[in-house]
Amino acid sequence: MKKFAVLGYGTVGSGVVELFFKNRKKIEQKAGEKMELGYILDLRDFPDSPYADCFTKSLDNILVDEDIAVVAECMGGVEPAFTYLMQCLELGISVVTSNKELIAQKGAELLAAAKTYNANCFFEASVGGAIPIIRPLHRCLAANDISAIYGILNGTTNFILNKMLSDDMSFDAALKLAQELGYAEREPSADVDGHDACRKICILSSLAFGKHVYPSSVHTEGIREISLEDAAAADALDGAVKLIASVRKLANGKILPAVMPMFVPHENLISRVDGVFNCVEVCGDAIDRAYFCGRGAGKLPTASAVMGDIIEAVKQHETVLSQDWIDDGSQDHVADISELVAGMFIRFAEPHNAIEVCEYLSQFLAERGRDGAQVSAVDNACLVNLPLTESERTKVVTALEENDWKVAHTMPVMEA
Amino acid sequence: MKKFAVLGYGTVGSGVVELFFKNRKKIEQKAGEKMELGYILDLRDFPDSPYADCFTKSLDNILVDEDIAVVAECMGGVEPAFTYLMQCLELGISVVTSNKELIAQKGAELLAAAKTYNANCFFEASVGGAIPIIRPLHRCLAANDISAIYGILNGTTNFILNKMLSDDMSFDAALKLAQELGYAEREPSADVDGHDACRKICILSSLAFGKHVYPSSVHTEGIREISLEDAAAADALDGAVKLIASVRKLANGKILPAVMPMFVPHENLISRVDGVFNCVEVCGDAIDRAYFCGRGAGKLPTASAVMGDIIEAVKQHETVLSQDWIDDGSQDHVADISELVAGMFIRFAEPHNAIEVCEYLSQFLAERGRDGAQVSAVDNACLVNLPLTESERTKVVTALEENDWKVAHTMPVMEA
Repeated sequence: MKKFAVLGYGTVGSGVVELFFKNRKKIEQKAGEKMELGYILDLRDFPDSPYADCFTKSLDNILVDEDIAVVAECMGGVEPAFTYLMQCLELGISVVTSNKELIAQKGAELLAAAKTYNANCFFEASVGGAIPIIRPLHRCLAANDISAIYGILNGTTNFILNKMLSDDMSFDAALKLAQELGYAEREPSADVDGHDACRKICILSSLAFGKHVYPSSVHTEGIREISLEDAAAADALDGAVKLIASVRKLANGKILPAVMPMFVPHENLISRVDGVFNCVEVCGDAIDRAYFCGRGAGKLPTASAVMGDIIEAVKQHETVLSQDWIDDGSQDHVADISELVAGMFIRFAEPHNAIEVCEYLSQFLAERGRDGAQVSAVDNACLVNLPLTESERTKVVTALEENDWKVAHTMPVMEA
Repeated sequence: MKKFAVLGYGTVGSGVVELFFKNRKKIEQKAGEKMELGYILDLRDFPDSPYADCFTKSLDNILVDEDIAVVAECMGGVEPAFTYLMQCLELGISVVTSNKELIAQKGAELLAAAKTYNANCFFEASVGGAIPIIRPLHRCLAANDISAIYGILNGTTNFILNKMLSDDMSFDAALKLAQELGYAEREPSADVDGHDACRKICILSSLAFGKHVYPSSVHTEGIREISLEDAAAADALDGAVKLIASVRKLANGKILPAVMPMFVPHENLISRVDGVFNCVEVCGDAIDRAYFCGRGAGKLPTASAVMGDIIEAVKQHETVLSQDWIDDGSQDHVADISELVAGMFIRFAEPHNAIEVCEYLSQFLAERGRDGAQVSAVDNACLVNLPLTESERTKVVTALEENDWKVAHTMPVMEA
């Protein structure tokens, strides 16, 4: 018999408890032994809960119980979560967390402690909610040299961008709807300004490339500047605007993580991922590309990932080293966004003759030795679908404006 | 240091060897120790191979080497693969296989032997090629009660169906193109008649529901009856024709596995998976649904999955029990295809007035207590998008034909 504890009885924590009792038989079968919910840590009182006996306000009560094999942290925030999990690991108790902020800030330290004390620190729920991505990335795809990861890692912004186009809404109106439906917080900054997606791409970058990436090192743009016109023009150009969290390995050995709205061509499955769904595309030398999609948030979807990790922690008696990464204090491995090489989506302030725009841009690019054939246009936007450096992108905008085609908005193009 | 051996030096086997030497440093890092290719078993001679020293024609040479920790079988076919892997397991050597025929026929026996001798039998590459699906299903999604799995599990047929629509081709012409491109065999039956997809859904069904499902118990239809008219009409009705391998849990406790062409509405991501890509949708009570997509075949994509399993076998010193299933000799848990409840795509032999068809069918269904609003039509086809029993579907066809609307082809509708 193995006991586990849940820290924090909010949405995710209560989902974990609910799921355990709902599917207990199946869960114990997968774990290979009987399991028991030992404790729920929460500062609030839940006298009417069917699990009232399990509640405690002190971590010490959990730590002194020698039957506790796994502690699942669902509190959020860096502290006290970090201190609590370090205390568990130091006693050889494996930990599981859904806390992306914690892993994005303290992942390397937690993983090092897990190794030192021969325990495990699992965090499948911290990226992509229900979507299995952490374990597939470092286990199933372990033989690959990963070249890039692209993802829709925030369901709220995906819902908003989707609604703008499907229901002809402004950003503000779509945000308001998302708030009414409970998808967005009253203070929506973490979602719409890209911070939530940033933490998640930090975790994936650290895991895929072996060295800790801090959120402060990552270029992060949100979707406040995206207009209905952008969404409609992208659709007309056979693509979609998505908030893409990405990381790619550059030729100079650095990695370039970023969170920004991108034009995603419809040939890429990511452009088809709608509503609150998340999707992660992993590019590797052996697999080419693989996609993982599902619900990126929500009570039971996130609980599914936490409970999967709890089962794994019960079964796994040795530290899983393949999910390790280091932190040597430097962020020199992270490239600046100015090193981004990408195609361009350009929306004009006013409609223009699409054929004229295409001809002009094609010639402009051909004269500079670039393939001018990769340009398409509609009346108020155009797409340059070939990789351009920052300086080339600036030159394109300057050339267009010198021709009196005023540029209202530009976005990089995600590779198909 | 851990040695591994590869059985069979065909496309997949040679891919495994190639990938190991390409990414050896990364692979050893993930495995946590040095690794070495000990042997390649093949009856042919490869005197010019850089690995000429590793070749052997006898399994015994491998079995007597006490340093061998893992044997990867990439030969295909049930025998001698089964006998070879049983010999390995009996000596406590973990085995890895890409062989879907073997697992679909002998999976339960191999898993039981692995358990008896405290070794592992991994088979990630047997379903979905590069796509991580086996490990995510039994580990990451372990806390879910799985209700259904739907998948495009054969890239060749997906390529053919795609080409028919995109390039206005007949089935025969698209098959010929697939053969020219090397996607289809000269004898294409295993792909186009659904047998390949059938083996894969047997493996997923056995894993998800815990009891062995044999290919002979599974209703299997291929795509030979699908015409360009079907593909075009499905597109007009906002969906796509896909060869879907599926399994769902019925209310009576049985499971219903099947391989058949289905109409997939565009709201479902599976309808957007094109070319030789595979996609698996897993439905569970906690996750709702998750999708896994990628290259379902090919040298390096399949080698990626095999090598991932080899790494796992090196790291994993205890039998992984969560991927276990039983075989008690009975197939009573498998329902007959007559128990299928699904919507209907109906193509007519000649064009008709779409509005008349809609009105007639809506009234017909409403009179029988079914929601008549779920009918849509184009000039040569219609869609009844509500779950109908086999007898209800028969009645619909009879009613249409009595009205002189001759039915050319019907397909079940996949749930969105």
